[in-house]
Formats: sequence, structure tokens, C-alpha cells
Amino acid sequence: MATQHLDPTDPAAGPSPELSTSLEQGGTPLADALAGYLRARATEFLRALRTQRETGGAAHGVEESADAALALRRSARRISGTLHTFRPLLDADWSEALRPELAWLSSTLAREHAYAARLERLVKALNRLSGASAFPTQSTAPRASDNAAKGNLTVGAAKAGALLDRRLTLARTRAHSAALDALGSARFHAVADSVAVLASEVPLTPAAATADLCPLAEAAYERLRDAVTSLPLITAGHPYNAEALIHGLSPDPAPHPQDAPWHQVRLLLRLHRYALEVLYGEDVPVDVRLLTSGQALNRHRDASEAAAAAASAARTPRIAPATAYALGVLHADQRHEVEAARFVFQQSWQKEAVSTS
Amino acid sequence: MATQHLDPTDPAAGPSPELSTSLEQGGTPLADALAGYLRARATEFLRALRTQRETGGAAHGVEESADAALALRRSARRISGTLHTFRPLLDADWSEALRPELAWLSSTLAREHAYAARLERLVKALNRLSGASAFPTQSTAPRASDNAAKGNLTVGAAKAGALLDRRLTLARTRAHSAALDALGSARFHAVADSVAVLASEVPLTPAAATADLCPLAEAAYERLRDAVTSLPLITAGHPYNAEALIHGLSPDPAPHPQDAPWHQVRLLLRLHRYALEVLYGEDVPVDVRLLTSGQALNRHRDASEAAAAAASAARTPRIAPATAYALGVLHADQRHEVEAARFVFQQSWQKEAVSTS
Repeated sequence: MATQHLDPTDPAAGPSPELSTSLEQGGTPLADALAGYLRARATEFLRALRTQRETGGAAHGVEESADAALALRRSARRISGTLHTFRPLLDADWSEALRPELAWLSSTLAREHAYAARLERLVKALNRLSGASAFPTQSTAPRASDNAAKGNLTVGAAKAGALLDRRLTLARTRAHSAALDALGSARFHAVADSVAVLASEVPLTPAAATADLCPLAEAAYERLRDAVTSLPLITAGHPYNAEALIHGLSPDPAPHPQDAPWHQVRLLLRLHRYALEVLYGEDVPVDVRLLTSGQALNRHRDASEAAAAAASAARTPRIAPATAYALGVLHADQRHEVEAARFVFQQSWQKEAVSTS
Repeated sequence: MATQHLDPTDPAAGPSPELSTSLEQGGTPLADALAGYLRARATEFLRALRTQRETGGAAHGVEESADAALALRRSARRISGTLHTFRPLLDADWSEALRPELAWLSSTLAREHAYAARLERLVKALNRLSGASAFPTQSTAPRASDNAAKGNLTVGAAKAGALLDRRLTLARTRAHSAALDALGSARFHAVADSVAVLASEVPLTPAAATADLCPLAEAAYERLRDAVTSLPLITAGHPYNAEALIHGLSPDPAPHPQDAPWHQVRLLLRLHRYALEVLYGEDVPVDVRLLTSGQALNRHRDASEAAAAAASAARTPRIAPATAYALGVLHADQRHEVEAARFVFQQSWQKEAVSTS
């Protein structure tokens, strides 16, 4: 990338100390890098779209189709994030119009996978809570009849698994249809057209040609750092602080309000990571701290949503008390996971930023 | 005490390095110290018994009566533990006969207090899980009607609290009657007679007069250390290892088998502490490590039993699903506490043994 060859010794335009820990070869990234990055992501998007169209209907193409959907989301997120971080350098009307459409697309495509992953997480947790190998490990639900002889609570776990399987499989099926509908819609074709334009010509502002990308990337990092600062990290750093379950029996089974700042940090961390990719190319050395922090926040989000799914399933009318009991244990277990993820984030974020290749 | 004035420089008979960390003034404790300790505990026992008899029936003597029961248990545990640790120095038939009787007495007297404390712990946890001030903080159960407008799960928490209140209050009342019956029984009078003998003359063996207490006290410490070594301390030292809830949905709601080795260490730690009291007197400087380790194991035991009580209440026939759900969350919360207590034990046990007065 162009940025790798710029003069790393120019003190006026060099990156701040905040960013320089990740900077291996240095330089003053110009808008060329931005345009190059956006073109590359747009090309990836179009390639994934082709694969998706070729495999989407085929019976033996399920895996390829899922991979293509993943690649579509991956590039859509990066384009959207980059439009956001480097907004002042891009045609405003165009980027303001495209961003929400990309967000709509990636959230629509993400849902099917999210429901499948949530069911898998919850079934795994039920297995663990029932003492290992009582249930099959694939994402099908445990069968209640297998465990009927073992007592109410084990039946409860099996029934809870079956209930979650029904609910989340239904949600996943609906999400699959919604994704297929979306991919065939006029709205999607408009997004694809915009991305096709991006692949050949990035609509930069006139001033962008000589602009320095660093201040905008730094601003993204500042937003991340400010958001991290406002997290309750001292509490999170004390193991077993029991914070995550505080509203475990509150009337609203929807995602806990206390989780929102952590979800926000997850998004800001992603934007920071994409900004680094713009500046230093996709082969930027892996920052272990960013990686583990991001993984902790993904786990936080997944556990938070799984806990909400268990609480929500417990509101199903006419379920057996044993089923409800198992869902209560499962909910608390996943909130425990939420707390564990916060602890891991706190630990990894406090570490010195180190780069390994 | 005699031990405080013995020659601390005698290398042949001096305490081992294991015990010497707690040894401030040094010396070779002889059976005098043992007899003195047992006489003092027996005197305390008889004093507590008098108070118990004077206040047991009076309406305004409830607190004094509870204090007296506590003092009775306290001295019974110490006598019983000392008979065990220093068994070779005491008349075998007599001490073998007395020990199970003391164990019967202290467990019978402990039960009422244990049920009250368990209810208090569970109601506090329900308050916390419902998001603070929804429920009264005293040990009475939350009223379902107060929370009816707030949604099913909060009603579930209130109903769970009411159910636990009914169950544990009934158990406490029964334990109270059983304790009163025990204190009026011929079996108890026989124990009291034996302790009265002990207060005036401790039945030592002929060899005891010149025996060194240290090897027996060290053996008690070795048993503790061996039992600690067999605990899964590496796992316990990793926060959020999720071990404690592994059988959270297993068919048997009785205390988890994985808790037993920890309960055993709790008892051995107590025996070690009593042995130190024999050697160095009750004004032995507080060993912070022993203190915090012991507190962690008490918390472990309390949380383990509270979790079992929640699981057991969930098996009540015909409870509402919302009640069962709340009990499931509560069970998992208390198992989380079990895990937290193991972590605290691991942390405090690893610390260097330090003495502060």
C-alpha cells in the first residue's frame, strides 16, 4: 500500500504516539490509501455477491453460500465503518445515503447466523450444566424421553433445550427467508450498484487528495478510548463481582441496560480496527491486545443475547416448572459468562499494547 | 499458659517450621496445656448451659438464649476437636464415648441458626437479583402483591421468596423444638455430666504427663495440608472457571459431590486452629491467612447449602413457572457464590503465612 512507502520521519505529519505502537513502517497515509482500501472491500463485496448468487439455490452449496454471506457482511461492515470514520474526505450525500443501506444489509444477513450460533451456545451450556455427556453435542435439542428416568430437573433441562430449539430454529428460518428476500430486493440491487461504483471510483472530496488520514483515525481511537474510560472497569476487574446478574430477575427480559456501553465499545473497537486497516493495509501486524479485547466483547455480546433468549423462552405460556427452572439456571449461567467476558476485557485492555506478527 | 514460658531454644523438642510461623513465644507445650485448655472449654460450656437454662424459657431472653446456644456449640466443637487431635494423650474409652455425643449436640444446636441464616442469605440474593430495593431487606419474604404490576419474573422472585420463607421458617421452627428437646433429654444430661468431670479433672493417659503436644498438632496440620493439596486449586484460581455450576441441572438437588472435599478442608482447618489454641492459648495472634481461608470456606458451605435449598424448593409440586424460573436463577447465583468462595480460598491460601495481632 502507498502508506507503507511514505516518509516515516516527517514529524509534522507523523502519527501520534497513540497510533504509532501499531505502526511498523510509519508514514503519512494519504487519501490514496483510503480509496485503495474502499475499492478492495467493494471488489470483495462483488465477488462474494457472485458466489452467493451461484450457490444460494444449490442444495450442495449451503456451506459456500454461508461463506459468501459472511464475506458480504464482512466487506459491508468495513465499507460502512470506513465511510463513517473518514466521512469528511468523502462525498457527503453519497456516503450518508449508502451507510444506512449497508447497515441494513449486514444486519439482515447476520441474523440467521446469529440465531444458529445462539442455539449452539445455549445447547452447549445445557450440556455442561447437566454434567457432560447427557445430551448430544450437535445443535439439535436433547430429547426429553432419554432423560425421563433421571428426575425432574434433568427433564427440565431436556425440555428447555427442546423449547429453545423450537424458538431459535423458527427465528433462524425466518431470518433465512428475510435474507433471501433482501438479496432479491430492489433495495439490495441499489446497494450493490453503489458498491459497484465504489469498486471503480471512490467519490472523494476535492480536499481529500492531500489530506492526512491520521487525525481522523486518531479521532476514532479517541472515541474508543473515551468509551472504554466510561466502562465500570474497576468493578469488572474484581472477579465474581456479581454485577452482571443484578437484574437477573427484573421484570424486563430484554437485553440488560448495563450491557449497552459494552456493546458500544465493541462497535468502536471494530471501527478502530478498520481504521488501522485503512492506514496500514490488511496485513497490519496483529495487535494481540486489540484481538483479545475484541474477542472478549464478542463473547460478551453473545452471552448477553443468549441470556436474553433463555429469559424470553421462560415467558412461554404453559411451560412446566422444571423447564422454567432450567431456563432460570441457564439465564444466570449466561449472565455469569457476560461477567466473565467483562473480566477478560478488563485484563486484556490493561495490558501494554504489544504487536506480534 | 504454661507453654508460653517453656524454653523456646530447645532444638530437639521445638516446634517444626510448619507450626513455628504461628509461634510467637516458642516452647515445648506439655500435656498441662492440653488439660488447661480442655478445663477452660468445659467451664465455658457449663457457664453457657447455666445461661441457657435461665433464659431459655423467658420471652425477653431470646437473644441471650441464642448467645448461650452459640457459646455451647463453640465450646462443644473445641472440646470435640481437641479430643480428636490429641487422642493418644487421653483416656481412649472416655474420649471415644464423648466425641460423638458432643458432635450430636453441636449439630442439633446449630440447625436452627443455620436455617435462619440460609433464609436471610437467599432473601438478600433475591433482592440483589431483582435490582436492589424492590423487596424489604429483613429476613421476611417479599410480598408478591407489591410486585404484581412489574411483570411475571418479578412476581416469580416474590413468590420464590415467599416459598423459601415458608419452607425454611418451618425447618427452623422444627430445629428449635428439636434443640429444646435435646437440651431436656437424658442424653444431653449425660453429656453435661461428662463435661462437668472434664472441668475438674481431665482424664489424661499416664504417658501424657511428659508428652510433647507438637507432633500431634503437626499431624493435624499435615492432614489439613494434604486435604488442601488434593483440592482443584489451579482451576479455582482461574476466575470464572464455571466449575461450580457444572451439575446445576443434574437430577440430584442434594449438595454437590464436588463440594465435599472443600467441606472437609473447612473441618480440618478448624481442627488446626483449635490445636494452635491448645498450644499457644486462645490469645494466639490472629493468622490472617487462616482467618480469611476459614471465612472463604464458611461462605463456600453457606452458599452450597443455600443453592441446594433453592433447588429443593423448585421441586415443590404445583409451583408457577415464574417461581421455578426465579429459583433456577437463585440456585445458579448461589453456585456462582460457591465458585467465588473457592477463588478467595485459593488466593488467601497461596499467600505467605503472616501473623498480625
